[in-house]
Amino acid sequence: MSGARNISAALRRARVPRPRIVLRSALPQSPLATARGFSISSTVRADKQIKYTSDAYPNVKRDPNFGELTAEDVAHFKELLGSQSAVVDGVTTDATDDLEPFNSDWMRKYRGHTRLVLKPGSTEEVSKVLKYCNDRKLAVVPQGGNTGLVGGSVPVFDEIVINTSRMNKIRSFDEASGVLVADAGVILEVADQYLAERDHLFPLDLGAKGSCHIGGNVSTNAGGLRLLRYGSLHGTVLGLEAVLPDGTIVESLNTLRKNNTGYDLKQLFIGSEGTIGLVTAVSIICPPRPKAVNVAYFGLESFEQVQQAFRLAKGQLSEILSAFELMDGRSQNLVRESTGNKYPLEGEYPFYCLIETSGSNAEHDMAKLESFLENVMGEGIVADGVLAQDETQFQALWRWREGITEALSHLGGTYKYDVSIPLSDLYQLVEDCRARLTEKGLVGDDDSFPVRAVVGYGHMGDSNLHLNVAVRQYNKEVEKAIEPWVYEWIQKRQGSISAEHGLGIAKREFIGYSQNDTMVKLMKQLKALYDPNGIMNPYKYI
Amino acid sequence: MSGARNISAALRRARVPRPRIVLRSALPQSPLATARGFSISSTVRADKQIKYTSDAYPNVKRDPNFGELTAEDVAHFKELLGSQSAVVDGVTTDATDDLEPFNSDWMRKYRGHTRLVLKPGSTEEVSKVLKYCNDRKLAVVPQGGNTGLVGGSVPVFDEIVINTSRMNKIRSFDEASGVLVADAGVILEVADQYLAERDHLFPLDLGAKGSCHIGGNVSTNAGGLRLLRYGSLHGTVLGLEAVLPDGTIVESLNTLRKNNTGYDLKQLFIGSEGTIGLVTAVSIICPPRPKAVNVAYFGLESFEQVQQAFRLAKGQLSEILSAFELMDGRSQNLVRESTGNKYPLEGEYPFYCLIETSGSNAEHDMAKLESFLENVMGEGIVADGVLAQDETQFQALWRWREGITEALSHLGGTYKYDVSIPLSDLYQLVEDCRARLTEKGLVGDDDSFPVRAVVGYGHMGDSNLHLNVAVRQYNKEVEKAIEPWVYEWIQKRQGSISAEHGLGIAKREFIGYSQNDTMVKLMKQLKALYDPNGIMNPYKYI
Repeated sequence: MSGARNISAALRRARVPRPRIVLRSALPQSPLATARGFSISSTVRADKQIKYTSDAYPNVKRDPNFGELTAEDVAHFKELLGSQSAVVDGVTTDATDDLEPFNSDWMRKYRGHTRLVLKPGSTEEVSKVLKYCNDRKLAVVPQGGNTGLVGGSVPVFDEIVINTSRMNKIRSFDEASGVLVADAGVILEVADQYLAERDHLFPLDLGAKGSCHIGGNVSTNAGGLRLLRYGSLHGTVLGLEAVLPDGTIVESLNTLRKNNTGYDLKQLFIGSEGTIGLVTAVSIICPPRPKAVNVAYFGLESFEQVQQAFRLAKGQLSEILSAFELMDGRSQNLVRESTGNKYPLEGEYPFYCLIETSGSNAEHDMAKLESFLENVMGEGIVADGVLAQDETQFQALWRWREGITEALSHLGGTYKYDVSIPLSDLYQLVEDCRARLTEKGLVGDDDSFPVRAVVGYGHMGDSNLHLNVAVRQYNKEVEKAIEPWVYEWIQKRQGSISAEHGLGIAKREFIGYSQNDTMVKLMKQLKALYDPNGIMNPYKYI
Repeated sequence: MSGARNISAALRRARVPRPRIVLRSALPQSPLATARGFSISSTVRADKQIKYTSDAYPNVKRDPNFGELTAEDVAHFKELLGSQSAVVDGVTTDATDDLEPFNSDWMRKYRGHTRLVLKPGSTEEVSKVLKYCNDRKLAVVPQGGNTGLVGGSVPVFDEIVINTSRMNKIRSFDEASGVLVADAGVILEVADQYLAERDHLFPLDLGAKGSCHIGGNVSTNAGGLRLLRYGSLHGTVLGLEAVLPDGTIVESLNTLRKNNTGYDLKQLFIGSEGTIGLVTAVSIICPPRPKAVNVAYFGLESFEQVQQAFRLAKGQLSEILSAFELMDGRSQNLVRESTGNKYPLEGEYPFYCLIETSGSNAEHDMAKLESFLENVMGEGIVADGVLAQDETQFQALWRWREGITEALSHLGGTYKYDVSIPLSDLYQLVEDCRARLTEKGLVGDDDSFPVRAVVGYGHMGDSNLHLNVAVRQYNKEVEKAIEPWVYEWIQKRQGSISAEHGLGIAKREFIGYSQNDTMVKLMKQLKALYDPNGIMNPYKYI
C-alpha cells in the first residue's frame, strides 16, 4: 500500500495520506437514492401544457379498426377489478387531472388522450383485461413507472393505460442461489433495498430507480450503470410471467440458471416494449452485494486520454470495475449551475470520468485502485482526480453523473439520443453535432437561440453515449437539423440508434438505420403472430 | 499472507510453506487441452456397430412428406458447392464408411441413415442449399463438431447433414471492446487460443472444446465450466448470422453491447438446436484473460458440507470464483481406474470439489483463496485438500473432473441426465436413483448386472447435476427403471430435465416435465412460423 503516498495532488487534497476505504456497511442501501435525476411529481409542472403527441406527429393517425370505449366497457372493468382505486375513469366522469400523470411523460414531451387507466392487481386480472380488450379491439398501453425516454409508456390517442403499480409484491427470494421472483410493478429501488437486507444486489441500476418498475425495466431491456459488471437482462433474467393479448398467461418463471428445454421464449419479452405481451412477473439472478465500493472522479484533457484511462481500468481493475462513466465538461457545468455545488476538482476540464469499483475485499480493491491511480496519474493520462473518502463524498460524486438528466430538465426541453458507437468514435458525435448546430446559427447563450447546450455523457464501459441537445423549447428547426443526420452518422459506423432507451414513438421510424429490411420484416412477422389485432402499444416500436 | 502457515496438512503436503501462485503466463493457452474427455476419432470404435436410432425409437417414423434424394439433387449440390471435399455422396456412390462419422455420435448411441453430407464454405452457400432443400422438402440436420449428448446433431433417417466445418474463419476481433466475430465452424479451442494470443478469453469452456464448433455451442446454448463467472450465451452473444429454411439470411452480427432496436431475434437461435435456422456466424463479447488462475481440489464427508463450502466460496472468493465443480467418490474412482493415476488426496471421500479462481492480481487471489481455505479447513467443512502448485498439477487436478466423461465411455454405454435442481436437493437424485436401480437388482460388479455404476458430478455453481448411469450395454430394462421416474423426480422439484445438453431426440418427449402446455404450444407455433415444411432437424427438439 506504499503507493498511496505518491499518487499526486489529487489524493493529497483528500487530506488523509491514505484514502479511507468506503465500506458497504457505511453506505445506505442505495448510494444513488439522493442522486436520482427525476420523478414524475417533481418534473410535471403545471405551468405549461405539454403538446399532444398526436399534434407533434400529425402523420400518425388513430387506427380506425380499434374499438371506442363505452360506458359499458368501463362498467365491465370496474366490476372486473373491484377496487375503486383500480380504475381511473375519464369516460363516464371528468377525470382529466387524474389521468394526466398517466397520459404524459416526465420529460413533458409526449402526451396522450387516454380516458381510462386500469390498475390490475394480479396476473389473472391482467389476463381478463387483455382478453376483453382483444375481443373488443381496444388498444392498450402497458405502463410501469412511466420513466421511459422515448414515449413508449404513454398513449398517443385513447389507448387504455394498463398500469402495473398495484402488482408490487416480492414473491420469493432464495439466498442460496440469489434468485429473486417479483411482480412487475415492484419499484427497482424497493427490490434493491429488499435484496440489500439479504446481502444481495439487483443486477441493474439506473437513475430512475426510485420510480421505475422492474417489469418496465425488463420490457425495455434497461441497461443502466452497471451492465459493464453484471451483464444484460438477457443473461440475468431467468424467467418471466407475461400475458399475451388474447389473455394467454405465459408462465415461465424459471428460477434455475440453466434450462435448455425448448425455445427461450422469455427473451422475446425482454426489450419488446409491451408490444407482444405484458410482463407481470420476473425471476432474476442477483449477485452477492459487494462488501467494498469505491468511487473516483477524474478530469481529463482529451477524449484520447479518456480512452487510455478506460483501457487501463479494464486491465487493472478488471473484475472489480463496476462502472466507467463519461461526462463532458459542459454536462458538468450544467450540473454545477443547476445545483450550485462546487466542482469536485479545482480546475475545469473538457472531460470527466467516474469510476466505481465493487468487490469482496476492501483492502484488495483499494490496492488495485491505488495502483491504477498511480498509473493514470503518473503517466499524465488523468489531469486531476479525487477519491470518495466517505459516504457523503461517494454520493456527491455520483450526483455529478446522475444529476445531468435533472440539470437538463431545468433548461426547457432536451432532444435525447442514446446511441452505441465503437469506442474510438464515441465522443466525435457530440463534437460533430455541436459544430453542425452552431454552423446553422442555432446555438447561443441568449434566449434568441433555440439551443442552449450540446452535451455528451454516458456509459463509456458499454460504448454507450447519451447525446443531449438542450433547447429552450422543443423546436422543429432544431429537430430537422439533427435528424436524420444523427442517425446517418451512427449508421455509417454500424452503431445503434437506441442503445438502451428503446424505440417507443421517438425512434420508431428510424429503426432502419440500425436494422436491415430482413430483420424488420421478421420483427413485423413476430408482432403479427402474437398480436394479430395490433392492440398492444400501437403506433410505436416497429 | 500470514495465514499460509496455518492452513492444515493439505497445504503443508504441497511441500512449500506458501503455495506457489500459478500465473497465467505459466499456463498453456488451454489448461484443459490434455484433459478433454473425447473426440470423435478416439471413441468411434470399429469393433461394434451402433444401433440405428430408427430401431431404438421404433415409434419415430420417417415423415412421408419429405422428398427423397435423387442423383439430380446430388449433381445440383456438387455444382453448387464446387469443391470435391464439400460433398460426401452416398447416393450415387457407396460411401458408407465416409458417411459414418456424420451419421453417428461419439457416445455410440445414435445413428442415422444419411446418404449425403454437405459442407458449405460460406453463408451464401448455406442459403442456396437450404432454399433448395426447402423447395424440394428435403430434410436436413445442421451439424457442427458433433459432440452433443442428446442425438441432436446426427440424422435419424436420410436427412442431409449440413456440416459447418468448412466455415471456419475468424472474421474480426476488436481489442478495445473484446468482441470476436467468427464463423460457426470455428472450433471452440481454436477461438480461445486466438483470443489467448490477444489476452482475452472465450466466455465458454467445456470438455469437448477441442472438437465442438462455436456455432454448435450457440445453437445448443452450451453452458460448461465457467457459466458461473461469465454468464450464459444469451448474455454474451451480441449478434448472429443465420440462415432460415427458405434461404433468408438473417444478418444481425451486432458488435455492440447495447442495441435496443426491436425484438432480440438472435435469442431465438440460441439453444434452438438448428430447428428454425442454421447459425453461420457469431459475434460474442470476450472478457480479458485472467492474469492469475488457481485450482484447489477437496475431499468432503457429506453433501451438506459441499453446500457449506459452496456458500463460503461464493461469499469469500466472490468475483474471482470461476468454477465450483462437484464430483462424487464413485466418479473419481472411475477416473482412477480408467487412467491408473494416483488420487490427488491420501484418503477417499464420498465427495470432491474442484474450485477455480481467475483474477487480475495473483497476490490478491491467493490471499482470498488462503483465507477461504483457512475457513473451510478450520471449521472442518473440508476433510482434506490440495492446491495446484504448478501448471502440471493444475492440469492434473482438472483432469479428475474433465476425465469423468471419458472414464465412463470405457465402461460400455452411459445413460446421461443433465439436470438443474435446487441446490439443497442436488445430490439426492443420485442417491435415489442408485437406491432404485439397486433395489431392482440391476446394479452389480460382475457382468451379469447391466448397471456398473451410478455416479453424479457437475456444475455445483449452476445447480447443474450430471447423473450418469454407466451400463455394460444399453438396456431397455434399465432405461425403463430410470425413465420417466427421473423426470418425475425433477418435475416435483421444479427442476429442468435438460440443464445444458438440450433436447435432441433423447429428451424430446419429456419436455412436458419442464415446460407447461402453453409454453410447448407457443414453441410449436414458432417452429411452424420459421420452418413451415418442418425440414430443419426433424424428429427432435419439440
